[in-house]
Amino acid sequence: MANFQGHALPGSFFLLIGLWWSVKYPIKYFHRKGKHSQLPHFYQCLEITEAAVRIVFSVIGCLAEQFVPDGPHLHLYHGNDWVKLMNWQHSTMYLFFGVSGIVDMLTHLTSHIPLGVDRLAMAVSVFIEGFLFYYHVQNRPLLDQHIHSLLLYIVFGGAASISLEVILRDNIVLELFRTSLLILQGTWFWQIGFVLFPPFGMAEWDQKSHENIMFITMCFCWHYLAALCIMTISYYLVYCSLSRIKRPGGEIIGIQKLKSDHTYQAALLSGSDEE
Amino acid sequence: MANFQGHALPGSFFLLIGLWWSVKYPIKYFHRKGKHSQLPHFYQCLEITEAAVRIVFSVIGCLAEQFVPDGPHLHLYHGNDWVKLMNWQHSTMYLFFGVSGIVDMLTHLTSHIPLGVDRLAMAVSVFIEGFLFYYHVQNRPLLDQHIHSLLLYIVFGGAASISLEVILRDNIVLELFRTSLLILQGTWFWQIGFVLFPPFGMAEWDQKSHENIMFITMCFCWHYLAALCIMTISYYLVYCSLSRIKRPGGEIIGIQKLKSDHTYQAALLSGSDEE
Amino acid sequence: MANFQGHALPGSFFLLIGLWWSVKYPIKYFHRKGKHSQLPHFYQCLEITEAAVRIVFSVIGCLAEQFVPDGPHLHLYHGNDWVKLMNWQHSTMYLFFGVSGIVDMLTHLTSHIPLGVDRLAMAVSVFIEGFLFYYHVQNRPLLDQHIHSLLLYIVFGGAASISLEVILRDNIVLELFRTSLLILQGTWFWQIGFVLFPPFGMAEWDQKSHENIMFITMCFCWHYLAALCIMTISYYLVYCSLSRIKRPGGEIIGIQKLKSDHTYQAALLSGSDEE
Amino acid sequence: MANFQGHALPGSFFLLIGLWWSVKYPIKYFHRKGKHSQLPHFYQCLEITEAAVRIVFSVIGCLAEQFVPDGPHLHLYHGNDWVKLMNWQHSTMYLFFGVSGIVDMLTHLTSHIPLGVDRLAMAVSVFIEGFLFYYHVQNRPLLDQHIHSLLLYIVFGGAASISLEVILRDNIVLELFRTSLLILQGTWFWQIGFVLFPPFGMAEWDQKSHENIMFITMCFCWHYLAALCIMTISYYLVYCSLSRIKRPGGEIIGIQKLKSDHTYQAALLSGSDEE
Repeated sequence: MANFQGHALPGSFFLLIGLWWSVKYPIKYFHRKGKHSQLPHFYQCLEITEAAVRIVFSVIGCLAEQFVPDGPHLHLYHGNDWVKLMNWQHSTMYLFFGVSGIVDMLTHLTSHIPLGVDRLAMAVSVFIEGFLFYYHVQNRPLLDQHIHSLLLYIVFGGAASISLEVILRDNIVLELFRTSLLILQGTWFWQIGFVLFPPFGMAEWDQKSHENIMFITMCFCWHYLAALCIMTISYYLVYCSLSRIKRPGGEIIGIQKLKSDHTYQAALLSGSDEE
Repeated sequence: MANFQGHALPGSFFLLIGLWWSVKYPIKYFHRKGKHSQLPHFYQCLEITEAAVRIVFSVIGCLAEQFVPDGPHLHLYHGNDWVKLMNWQHSTMYLFFGVSGIVDMLTHLTSHIPLGVDRLAMAVSVFIEGFLFYYHVQNRPLLDQHIHSLLLYIVFGGAASISLEVILRDNIVLELFRTSLLILQGTWFWQIGFVLFPPFGMAEWDQKSHENIMFITMCFCWHYLAALCIMTISYYLVYCSLSRIKRPGGEIIGIQKLKSDHTYQAALLSGSDEE
Repeated sequence: MANFQGHALPGSFFLLIGLWWSVKYPIKYFHRKGKHSQLPHFYQCLEITEAAVRIVFSVIGCLAEQFVPDGPHLHLYHGNDWVKLMNWQHSTMYLFFGVSGIVDMLTHLTSHIPLGVDRLAMAVSVFIEGFLFYYHVQNRPLLDQHIHSLLLYIVFGGAASISLEVILRDNIVLELFRTSLLILQGTWFWQIGFVLFPPFGMAEWDQKSHENIMFITMCFCWHYLAALCIMTISYYLVYCSLSRIKRPGGEIIGIQKLKSDHTYQAALLSGSDEE
Repeated sequence: MANFQGHALPGSFFLLIGLWWSVKYPIKYFHRKGKHSQLPHFYQCLEITEAAVRIVFSVIGCLAEQFVPDGPHLHLYHGNDWVKLMNWQHSTMYLFFGVSGIVDMLTHLTSHIPLGVDRLAMAVSVFIEGFLFYYHVQNRPLLDQHIHSLLLYIVFGGAASISLEVILRDNIVLELFRTSLLILQGTWFWQIGFVLFPPFGMAEWDQKSHENIMFITMCFCWHYLAALCIMTISYYLVYCSLSRIKRPGGEIIGIQKLKSDHTYQAALLSGSDEE
């Protein structure tokens, strides 16, 4: 939907899931480091809930694109013309996010889906988003094109990183990287909304100014810096709350063990190029 | 061959092999999960048959391109001009698919070919297809160029994925990904045929309309969704039939063991980033 | 800063760190080969110092860009125009290098940051440099554009190589490669300064001459050759001094053991494709 | 050197080394498979000889480019112009091949160079070739540009594949792939010579004909097919001669053991995705 809400809505979706991931993955990481038990069942429920939320978001997005007042209402072809292809393309994006959610859910519910298929489905859904955007934004004003094309860095970078997770599953660095890109995508959608459809009677941006394009490029970097900060704070809060929870009981296993693990890890890695 | 049949024929080839793969790889996966024995011999025969079928298909395609009424009949140069280079290029593509089939067959028949060469040969044959297509479709109407260029995503994506199999041989996720791309390629060839050479007196497509291009881009995504669905159904049917076969005999080893494998796998993976 | 100093300053920063790395990584490599003890503490201090130096350099660079006489002095928007976006972009680059330095320091000071995050942060900071440069140099004279665009090879090559270190941490070959690229970047910044802003009353370069572009392209290769030579000499000096230090004490363990390690390594590797 | 000889000479160099590799790597592969002993010393000598030959070739090429009658004779700048930059660029290419040869030799002669640096140096030298070619061929007739640009596929493909060998050293599939690309490069240089500078009074090629470009594209694929065939024959001859040598002595260990290795390997690999 080519208006402020049409960018704020998906932006908020992405941001919410990104924030959730910035909590989930550190928890998973510290739990796994601390004591190897407990995690599976509690974590499984969380994962299934998350997948369900993502499916619901996708369905909302998909329906919203179809049934907004100026939407296609499921009509694809009328007379001799295609009907509202822009909305159809957005629906397609949401559809693929939905598929990724379903595959995630099935992976955690049943046991006969090979591990890695969920990551592949996620990579595909992100790639499809980038693929559609790529052809989407041609023939638009310069600034519009540029601000959308920066999304492609996030999207294709994300798709590559998630594909890597097919092989390097549960690698915390890749997971955090993915999280930071998702938060960035969320804030960037809001930025696009503010620039292309200034709300609250803000001034219009000159869509042809080269200066504006230079600023937007730099602004993109700042957004990423902000995304990294948000993720770091979230990571630190998780760390603090987990170490506080454990202290009263007297068994500071989690963090203590982590420390030695870290040393061990360093030693291990320092010898890894001998192979 | 620049007509409907010339796209429907290779499309059907790709679709057939794709469907077969969507049965073969799940069978191999479940068998390997269940009991590690038996597989080799039965599976070897299947592989050799498949390679033979692919060689036959390639020879048919190659000869068809040469000996259709308006083909070059093996003449390459006549007077001062090249003869029917389009057909020669198609022949070349089939030739490389044939080579890939031969290497596959040799890999399974003899034991002195290093494992991975078959995957490399397949990646090369797919890359050559994309390479020729890339230079092939320049100087054509916009829609024609666009619809063919979307093939390049399939083909180069496939080549990259198959190259990865040189190192990560027998990775079910990569195999399923490859299968889905092959099915997509099959249905997309049919789509190209329908769009560029509408059969049964269907209306011509406007080759310059930007709307048509936007639709085709989205349609490509839907085709991939369909390919994923076909593969999922196929995977599910294999799973069901394999678990049914084993139930009467009382030894539900296959699926039971799979379940525990899955848990084991999850545990293993969850600890993999400690290294 | 679009003048000679504005290129010489960062060039010297990069060169200094590059030279330091060309000493540090060989030391680490030989130490690890020789005796597996001792290293951690001494090395940890070095790493923290290095990170601190990099942070200081980044702060200097960032402030210099802001507070040079014709800088923006932290004003971003004035009247209806953006203020000195070029300087702001450079500040952003330094900011990210600073972030990378901070992450490096934290990784070595605390133990709850996952290994690999430091490399990811470094890769991101290098990528951001390339990203900003890419949009930075459009709409400039041909030679200016070309000489800056060659930087992109260094920067994106470096970002890719550093990303790889997330997975293949402490791989000496990747570390040396990264070092050589950093030295190259340092000398290339000096070259850019000499070409675009000839100091000492040197003759101006014709910015449109195709011959100049051809020479600069080749000159880039020579710079890399020089960078490789510098690194090799540095590597050799470290090797010599380390083997001399150990000889008087009679325990030539370091190098002796290295030799056998090497043979062992060769044997190991020669058998590695059997898997 | 822009004439037939200037393409035939390097073409022959590449072809010779390619043919040698197509013998060397299979020998190494079969030896390693058969009995793990013996190889090192004999093989070390071969490697050193090869490196020496490559250095000699590079020096010849480098000097030839400088001292042909219309060469620059080591003058870089004369009056206000660069002297014969084309020859200087070719010299630079040879220089990097020479560096790669020297690093290879040092790796086999001394033991304090980390394994993998030789492959990195080779990848860099190949990349530099492609890098220089890329800027080299702009502003030329269409066919000239196209036929040279096809080289880039070989060169960048080769550089990527060799870079991979830094990590996956002694992987026979990568080595054979590299060999096939080198043979292709050799034959393609000859093809370029024949097309751009037809010898023996052959007819000139129309440099603007689109048909010629289409043919050349296809011809490139045929060259690769030929390169693959040459390599296969070479591989097969090595296999035959090695199995014949061993038969008289009664100890058919080599091939016998290979067979079981192969089965073992298959079993191993078939279980590899369980991890």
